[in-house]
Amino acid sequence: MGLIYLDHLSATPLHPKVKEAMVHHLENFFGNPSSDHQVGHPAAQALETARSQVAALLKAADPKEVVFNSGGTESCNHAIKGVAIGLREKGRHIITSNIEHKAVLNSLRTLRLLDYRVTSLDVDQYGLVDPAAVEKAIQPDTILISVMLANNEIGTIEPIAEIAKIAKQHKIVMHTDAVAATGVIPIDVQQLGVNLLSLAANQFYGPPGVGALYIRKGTPIWPLLDGGLQENKRRAGTENLIGIVGMGAAAEMARLELPERLPRLKALKERLLEGLLARIPELKVNGHPTQCLPHLLSLSVTYIEGESLMLMLDDEGIVVATRSACASGSLRASHVLIGTGLDFALAQGTMVITLGRDNTEADIDRVLAVMPGIVQTLRDMSPIYRKGQAAS
Amino acid sequence: MGLIYLDHLSATPLHPKVKEAMVHHLENFFGNPSSDHQVGHPAAQALETARSQVAALLKAADPKEVVFNSGGTESCNHAIKGVAIGLREKGRHIITSNIEHKAVLNSLRTLRLLDYRVTSLDVDQYGLVDPAAVEKAIQPDTILISVMLANNEIGTIEPIAEIAKIAKQHKIVMHTDAVAATGVIPIDVQQLGVNLLSLAANQFYGPPGVGALYIRKGTPIWPLLDGGLQENKRRAGTENLIGIVGMGAAAEMARLELPERLPRLKALKERLLEGLLARIPELKVNGHPTQCLPHLLSLSVTYIEGESLMLMLDDEGIVVATRSACASGSLRASHVLIGTGLDFALAQGTMVITLGRDNTEADIDRVLAVMPGIVQTLRDMSPIYRKGQAAS
Repeated sequence: MGLIYLDHLSATPLHPKVKEAMVHHLENFFGNPSSDHQVGHPAAQALETARSQVAALLKAADPKEVVFNSGGTESCNHAIKGVAIGLREKGRHIITSNIEHKAVLNSLRTLRLLDYRVTSLDVDQYGLVDPAAVEKAIQPDTILISVMLANNEIGTIEPIAEIAKIAKQHKIVMHTDAVAATGVIPIDVQQLGVNLLSLAANQFYGPPGVGALYIRKGTPIWPLLDGGLQENKRRAGTENLIGIVGMGAAAEMARLELPERLPRLKALKERLLEGLLARIPELKVNGHPTQCLPHLLSLSVTYIEGESLMLMLDDEGIVVATRSACASGSLRASHVLIGTGLDFALAQGTMVITLGRDNTEADIDRVLAVMPGIVQTLRDMSPIYRKGQAAS
Repeated sequence: MGLIYLDHLSATPLHPKVKEAMVHHLENFFGNPSSDHQVGHPAAQALETARSQVAALLKAADPKEVVFNSGGTESCNHAIKGVAIGLREKGRHIITSNIEHKAVLNSLRTLRLLDYRVTSLDVDQYGLVDPAAVEKAIQPDTILISVMLANNEIGTIEPIAEIAKIAKQHKIVMHTDAVAATGVIPIDVQQLGVNLLSLAANQFYGPPGVGALYIRKGTPIWPLLDGGLQENKRRAGTENLIGIVGMGAAAEMARLELPERLPRLKALKERLLEGLLARIPELKVNGHPTQCLPHLLSLSVTYIEGESLMLMLDDEGIVVATRSACASGSLRASHVLIGTGLDFALAQGTMVITLGRDNTEADIDRVLAVMPGIVQTLRDMSPIYRKGQAAS
């Protein structure tokens, strides 16, 4: 039986068109886009083609607003630290939420060492940030608001357009981390009204370690990587052109396939969720029930450890995650789940399933056939569960 | 007639083994090294294999001292800003030289905005930094010395081991930018005695946009990219694994082929230099005559513009550079050449030739056959040259 891959948040298989574009590039070109000679020129052309492809996916007004880099983490670091330095004379206060990706939260931790102040907002039980709370947190020297478009562990979609409107009224720069959302739901930087938006190719069938920061024209931001004049002076360093070509192709395919991907993912997720709820008692679904990513399902299973569940599913050829790959290796409970008010034990019993374009109804049915038995086996090994069963 | 590529500093063609490794990886694997399941495990293994390959090239004591990133520019930014933040309580003074890469100089420019102080040392006519001047520049709160191993525009090799010894005596962290030197001359971090060393894969037949920072165990350095726990907590962000696999293969090939590459490059450079000096009058060779990279030749041609020379050679299928690709697009004269005391006109008339492993004696002979005529054509168009000729 083939592998059933349900961890598209950690990595997506390369889209066949992405593979093709990358192999074609690496077999045929090696020039530096900055070189003004016949070896450099096709490289510069490939770079600008990819930039236009990404700009089209985001509906950016100008491809120049797309700045390629090494991925979502660099994008978030650039957005936050770049604005902090760019506006250091104007103010040193930044607003964020408690459930942001660590790339945002730890960038802010570093800025605290350099005498910046941060207000990190609570979220509700679904992981929603309240726009009114954002407005209330604004101080005279607030320079930046950073709230993610969709959470990468529970899938909740935040009211970014509303928050960006508040930011604009107060002349504050607005960044959104759209890494988990790109290629999964439509993204329109005009409709969102943000100044900065982070994305990563490996979330939408592009290669890992390449991403982009959308920088709206006129946004006061300093480079994170200082050096040469690449990326319209926004990001120094010789470009990862093989990866960028792949990201461009992935963006193009996301734009073309999204109208078909979205309803397919939604239907598969519904089938999975309903099936699991019918088969496994005491299952908690995390995140917002409707304002959420169509491919992500976060489930907390009482009495068991997510890690054990993941490993036993792995033995059955079903690949899921317990949390974001960036946080794996950490022994602490997910700050996102704790942020929504989940208790520690339930947070430890959490599994994250993210569906992808290759998944089928047959995959879902296999999960439904296998998972209830594994959960029961694990629960039977749990002293707390057995005690509860004996008492009832 | 085939293309003669003599701009290996801007980009190197991928080594056949590098292509093979990258295509093999992207065709067969897509997992995230941080994922603790069957799709993640081979990715983690590929990552650690590449780390060992790079560690072996540098003679690092432990592969964990190699931190992969997006290239030489990120390496230099990380070294400088990471130590600045890591040691901010200890001091705010940094020493460097006037001819460093812009990744170093512009990182320091940003630190100046955050109240750090920088002493930038003059170099001699060959581009050499004087170790005694470094020692004299040390202040009680000096935290970092950053001097490049070899200059990327004139090829001069700096006395890094000597400078690192001084740094160690004064308990100051020592960084060297080895980007231009890696894969061209032997690099031994033990012999050099540095704490930090920057390198980039695209200088030694690996892919562009991937590099590494060597961080000696115990070096007080803060991450540049904050976020997840990747790279032993030194550098957050999902890894560019396709690129890293390529860099590992390139490091392995550099280690194996270096004993053969070095004398070959030296002999070709000598043939080229002697031939040009014999055929073109009033040619100035930049950089140190003996302490220099074996593959780089920087020549200033009186009365003409390097740009015109480059374009006319390009028409003949001979590809050279006028300066580092990172600085192309800038209209200012090279800070490196001006740093060595070259006058503005000569700096503008400069051409940089960098040889590579595919170049042959026939390539050199073709350059010798073509270039003198082009120089003469350009000089005949120069009013200053004609005036000088008429007067003599």
